Amino acid sequence: MNKPTSQNAFETPEVTTGPLPGSRRVYTAPEAAPHLRVPHREIELHPTAMEPPVRVYDTSGPYSDPDAKIDVEHGLPRWRTERIVARGGVEAYDGREPTPLDNGGATGKYLAREFPVRHRPLRGTGAPQPVELASSPCAMDRDDSWDKGKPARPPVTQIEFARAGIITDEMIYAAERENLGRRQALENAAASIAEGESFGAEIPEFVTPEFVRDEIARGRAIIPANINHPELEPMVIGRNFLVKINANIGNSAVASSVEEEVEKMVWAIRWGGDTVMDLSTGKNIHNTREWILRNSPVPIGTVPIYQALEKVGGVAEDLTFDIFADTLIEQAEQGVDYFTIHAGVRLPYVPLTADRVTGIVSRGGSIMAKWCLAHHKESFLYERFEEICEIMRSYDVSFSLGDGLRPGSIADANDRAQFAELETLGELTKVAWDHGCQVMIEGPGHVAMHKIKANMDKQLETCGEAPFYTLGPLTTDIAPGYDHITSGIGAAMIGWFGTAMLCYVTPKEHLGLPDRDDVKVGVVTYKIAAHAADLAKGHPAAKLRDDALSRARFEFRWEDQFNLGLDPETARDFHDQTLPKEAHKVAHFCSMCGPKFCSMKITQEIRDEFGSARAPNDVADAEQGMAEKAKEFNEKGGEIYLSEDRSGK
Amino acid sequence: MNKPTSQNAFETPEVTTGPLPGSRRVYTAPEAAPHLRVPHREIELHPTAMEPPVRVYDTSGPYSDPDAKIDVEHGLPRWRTERIVARGGVEAYDGREPTPLDNGGATGKYLAREFPVRHRPLRGTGAPQPVELASSPCAMDRDDSWDKGKPARPPVTQIEFARAGIITDEMIYAAERENLGRRQALENAAASIAEGESFGAEIPEFVTPEFVRDEIARGRAIIPANINHPELEPMVIGRNFLVKINANIGNSAVASSVEEEVEKMVWAIRWGGDTVMDLSTGKNIHNTREWILRNSPVPIGTVPIYQALEKVGGVAEDLTFDIFADTLIEQAEQGVDYFTIHAGVRLPYVPLTADRVTGIVSRGGSIMAKWCLAHHKESFLYERFEEICEIMRSYDVSFSLGDGLRPGSIADANDRAQFAELETLGELTKVAWDHGCQVMIEGPGHVAMHKIKANMDKQLETCGEAPFYTLGPLTTDIAPGYDHITSGIGAAMIGWFGTAMLCYVTPKEHLGLPDRDDVKVGVVTYKIAAHAADLAKGHPAAKLRDDALSRARFEFRWEDQFNLGLDPETARDFHDQTLPKEAHKVAHFCSMCGPKFCSMKITQEIRDEFGSARAPNDVADAEQGMAEKAKEFNEKGGEIYLSEDRSGK
Repeated sequence: MNKPTSQNAFETPEVTTGPLPGSRRVYTAPEAAPHLRVPHREIELHPTAMEPPVRVYDTSGPYSDPDAKIDVEHGLPRWRTERIVARGGVEAYDGREPTPLDNGGATGKYLAREFPVRHRPLRGTGAPQPVELASSPCAMDRDDSWDKGKPARPPVTQIEFARAGIITDEMIYAAERENLGRRQALENAAASIAEGESFGAEIPEFVTPEFVRDEIARGRAIIPANINHPELEPMVIGRNFLVKINANIGNSAVASSVEEEVEKMVWAIRWGGDTVMDLSTGKNIHNTREWILRNSPVPIGTVPIYQALEKVGGVAEDLTFDIFADTLIEQAEQGVDYFTIHAGVRLPYVPLTADRVTGIVSRGGSIMAKWCLAHHKESFLYERFEEICEIMRSYDVSFSLGDGLRPGSIADANDRAQFAELETLGELTKVAWDHGCQVMIEGPGHVAMHKIKANMDKQLETCGEAPFYTLGPLTTDIAPGYDHITSGIGAAMIGWFGTAMLCYVTPKEHLGLPDRDDVKVGVVTYKIAAHAADLAKGHPAAKLRDDALSRARFEFRWEDQFNLGLDPETARDFHDQTLPKEAHKVAHFCSMCGPKFCSMKITQEIRDEFGSARAPNDVADAEQGMAEKAKEFNEKGGEIYLSEDRSGK
Repeated sequence: MNKPTSQNAFETPEVTTGPLPGSRRVYTAPEAAPHLRVPHREIELHPTAMEPPVRVYDTSGPYSDPDAKIDVEHGLPRWRTERIVARGGVEAYDGREPTPLDNGGATGKYLAREFPVRHRPLRGTGAPQPVELASSPCAMDRDDSWDKGKPARPPVTQIEFARAGIITDEMIYAAERENLGRRQALENAAASIAEGESFGAEIPEFVTPEFVRDEIARGRAIIPANINHPELEPMVIGRNFLVKINANIGNSAVASSVEEEVEKMVWAIRWGGDTVMDLSTGKNIHNTREWILRNSPVPIGTVPIYQALEKVGGVAEDLTFDIFADTLIEQAEQGVDYFTIHAGVRLPYVPLTADRVTGIVSRGGSIMAKWCLAHHKESFLYERFEEICEIMRSYDVSFSLGDGLRPGSIADANDRAQFAELETLGELTKVAWDHGCQVMIEGPGHVAMHKIKANMDKQLETCGEAPFYTLGPLTTDIAPGYDHITSGIGAAMIGWFGTAMLCYVTPKEHLGLPDRDDVKVGVVTYKIAAHAADLAKGHPAAKLRDDALSRARFEFRWEDQFNLGLDPETARDFHDQTLPKEAHKVAHFCSMCGPKFCSMKITQEIRDEFGSARAPNDVADAEQGMAEKAKEFNEKGGEIYLSEDRSGK
C-alpha cells in the first residue's frame, strides 16, 4: 500500500463475476421468514445421470449470479439495515470522523480513494462514546458504569437475542444454508448417512432456526454480523454446523493495492471462503477496508492492534488503550464482523517463551509482549477487557480471542506458554459472554499429529465449548512452499475433532504474500480439509456430494465429475492435458488405462450380471449365487471390451 | 508407447543430475561391513548458524553425486552381484529368451531399443524352470515338488537369511541409512526426542543390523532386493522404520515414451521416492523396464498381470497361469524387486462389489474378477499361489499382495468386499512366508478419516504385522485435481497409525497421466505425509530436521530455510516472487510483516532479556522473575525496531 496512487489512477476495482461451470445460484425462502432470499449453488448434471441437480453451500455472494447487478462503487445491497433498526436497541449517529492517521498518514497521491458512499453508523443504545483523542488522551479511562449485568438493556447482539429467546433473521438465514441436502438424504433411507465419529459434537438431522438460537445462547456457536455490515449473508460458526474456512487477505508494507484486495476478497469467496480476514498493515488501511466491507457478503475479520500500531508509528511501547479503543470504534463503525483480540498474552507468560525454538510468532502476540515488557505492566487488553467487551457489544462485533503465544514450530507445540494463554482465553470467554458478546477462540499453529487432539480437548474444556478457530495446524516444519498441505493435514484432523472454522494457509506461508493463484489453492485445500472433517464427523448430508461425484466418475460423465469438484477449471484442464479432444469428454474410458482396458467397464459388467438390488451381503450368500450367475454369464458369452476404434465414441 | 520409435530416433535418455541446492551426497561405512558405502545427504548451513550440516535420508542415487560417472547406456554399478554369488544358493543361467510378445508385439520402428548390455540372470538353485510356452502351454501345471518345507535348501531371500540368523549386507546397509541423526539426538539430551504415540509400533533408539534381521525374520519388515537388481541401494520397509513412499511411473496406451520413463524414475527419487512402481501398459513394456531397472538405485515394483494381459491381446478370459508364470520369470530375471499380485480377488467376492458406487477400481482386481466370472472358476492366482511363491522366492522378489477390491469412493470404504479380500491376503501372507518369501500388503484407496484406523488395525491383526502399503487413502471424493491433498491427509494419518509405505497420488489422479511437475508435487506431498507420520509416531530423530529449519526461520537464515525444506527450488522461487533481491535473502525481515515490524525480532529481544538457560518453567516462577527482568529491561531502554532504511541490510 506504499505504492503511489491517485484519484485518477485509482480505477473501479474489477472483480470476477459469473457462475462456476455447470452451476447456478438459486435462492430459497425459509418457512420461518419467507421474505429472506437464502442463496445456494446448484450443479446441473448430464441428462444421462437421471439425477436432480446437486445443491451445495454457496459463499460466493451475488458475484456468481448473472442476474445480480454488481456495482463495486455502490457496494452490495444493504438489506439487513431495515430489520436491524426495526428490532430496536440501536441508534444511528454521526460516527467518528476519519483522520489522516486512520490511513497511516497517507496523503495526496499516496492516499487511496475513499469509498464513494458514506453511511451513518448504528450502535447499541448506551454505547461507549468515541474518544476525542487529540484533546483528551485519557478519555477512556476505566468507566465502571459499563459493568456487566446492567439490567434490561434491549438486545443488540445475536447472543443477547438468543438468550432472550428471540430468533433473528440472521439465525433463520444461517439455518437455511446449513440444511443443504439433508431432507433429500433422509428421504433416501438406503444411503447410510449419519455414520461417523463426532467426538461429542451434537449434529442434528435438521438445523432449525431454534437450534441455531439455542447453540448461540449457549455460546457454542456465533453468527459474526456487525450491525454496520448490512450487506452480509449471515452464516453460523460452531461445532455442530458445517466446518467453515477463513481466507486471509491484506496488503503488507511491502506490496499490493486496494484494487487487488477487493478482488482477492471476491476471488476467495468464489472458491469457498466462508469468512475473510483483512490483515492489512501500512498505509490506507481505513479506505481499503471500507471498499472491502461494502462489497463483502461474508463476515470480515481484522486484527485491530495492527492498525493501532500504525497509529503510533510502529512503536509498540507507545500503544495506549485509548488509541486501541478508538481503533475498535473506527472499525466497528465500518462494519467489521469479528476482531482478533490478543488479550490472553499476559505479562507473566512472556518469559515462558524465552527458550522456545521460535519464540512468539504471532504479530499481535509479539506487539503485546513488547508492550508488557517495556512497561512492566499487565497487558491493557487484559486489564481493560470489559471495556473492550462493551465497545464490541454495541456493534455486535464478535470476539476472536487471539492465540498470541501459539507455537511457531513443531518444537514449541502444546507448551506451557501456549496452554497458559488458552486458560486465560477461557476466563475471558466468560467475561465476554457476561457482557453480551459472541466469542470464538483462536488456536495453533504448528502441531505434530499426535498433539492435535489435546488442543481441541483442552479448548473445549477451558473455553466452555466456544467455537474453536485454528490456523492449520501445520504438522511438520520441513516443507516451505507446501504449507497449505502440511497444514491441510492438521486442519482436516482438528476439524474432525471439533474445530468450527479453519483459517487457511497458502503455499506462500513463511515465504511471501499470496497471489491470486495462491489464494485459490489455499481455499480449495481448506475446503477439502473442512469437507473431510464433515464426512468424518458424520454430517448427515456431507457424503451426498462425494457420492454424486463418484457416480459421475464411474459412469464416465466427465463434465459432471469436473463440475461437482471443488475446482472444475483445474480438473478440466488436467484432463485435457492428456486427452484434449472434446470427444474424449464423452469417452467411456480415461487416460490412465486407455481405451482398450478399463476397470470401470468391468465393474459395469459385474453390476449388469448381479444387479445391485440382488447383490449378496456376505460371502456365503455370494458363493451360492455364483454358480447360477456365472453359468448365465457364460451362456450370454459376456464380452465387454470395446475394440479401440469403437471406444472413442 | 505407441509412438513410432527407431534405433536412430531413440536417443540416450537424458536424466537430471547434480546435487540439490546446499546439499552434497556423502557416504559412511557401517561398522559391521566397512566395505559398504552407504549414502546420505548433508545440507550445509550458513556459518552464522554455528551448527553442523543436517544429515537426511538420500534416495536420489548416484545422480546427485557430482563425482559419480553417470552412463545411462551402461547402467549403475552392479555392486551387489559378487556378494550375492559368494553367499551361495544361487546359480547363473542363460535366462529366458525375450520374445516379441514381451514388448506387446512391437516391431520395426515401433520397437523401443534394447538396453545395450545383457546380463546373465541369477536364480536360487532348484528354481522352477522357464516355460516353453509355444510348445507346451500346460508346462507349469501344478508341481507338488515345490511344496513348502523343503528341508535344508540354502537361503536365497532376505527372510530366509534372517530366519537362519544371517545378517546380510542388505540388512547392514538399510540399518545404516535408518540411523540418521539418532546418535546426535541422543547426545543432545535437552531435546525431548522420543515423544509420540506409536500405536504399538516398537521403534528402537538405534537401528542395528540385528534389529533389521529380527524384523525381517518375523515378517514385520521387508528389504525388496531381487538378486538380479544388483544396482540397488537396499532399503527396509516396516512399521518400525522410517515411513517410506512409492512413486508410480509408467506409460499407458495413450501417451509417453521410454526416455520419459527413465527420467521420471530419476526425477521421482531425486525428490524422495523410496521405491518406484513401473505401471506401464501397451507396447515396449519389456525394453522400457530394462532401461529403468539398470539405472535404478531404488526397488522397482510392477503389476505383472498388466503385461500378461497384453500378451493375450487384452482379453482377460484368455489369461492362463502359464502365461502369467512366464511373465513373472521374465520380470524376475530383469530384476523387478516386488510384484503386486492380486491373489485375494476370489470368485465368491466378486458379486460383493455389485452394489458399490464405484465397483472394482483396481485394474488388476477387475482383470481377475473378469477372469473368474468368465470361467466361473476360482482365481488361478489364488489356486496356484504356492507355485507363484516358488518363482518369487527363487529371485527374492517380494510380494505386494494387491487389494484388487479396494474402495474407489468414500461410499465403498470398509465394506464386506474389501475386508473379505484382506482376510484372504492374511491367509496368503502365511503361505508366502512358509515358502521363504517377503510380503507386504496393499491397502486402500478412498476412506473417510473416521474409517482409516480400522483399516490399519484389521491389517495388523489379519496379516500378522506384515508391512502395510497404502494408496493414500483419499479422505473425500470431491476434489479432482487436488487428490494429492485429499489423499495426503489420509496418508499422513494411516502412516501414523502404522503403515510402512505410502503410495503417492499426484494432482492428475482420476484425470490424466502425471507429467514431471505432477510427479514432483506428488512425491513432495507424500514426503510431508511420511515425515508427519514419523514425527507423530515418535521417531527418535525425525524432529531434528524440523528444529533445524525452524531455527533457520527464526534467525532469518533464508537460504538455510530453503535448503532444509523438501523442495528448495520452490521455496526460493516463492520468496523471490515477493522480495526478489539477493539482499533480501539476508534481510532480517520477511514479506509478511515488512521491514518495520517483525514478530520474530521481538521474540529475539525477549530471549536476549530472559535467556533460554534462565527461562522459567511455570507461571509462578515467571511472575517472580519478571519484576527484576522488566526493571533491567527498562533501564537498558531496550529498543529493537530497526528503522526502515537500516533493516534492508
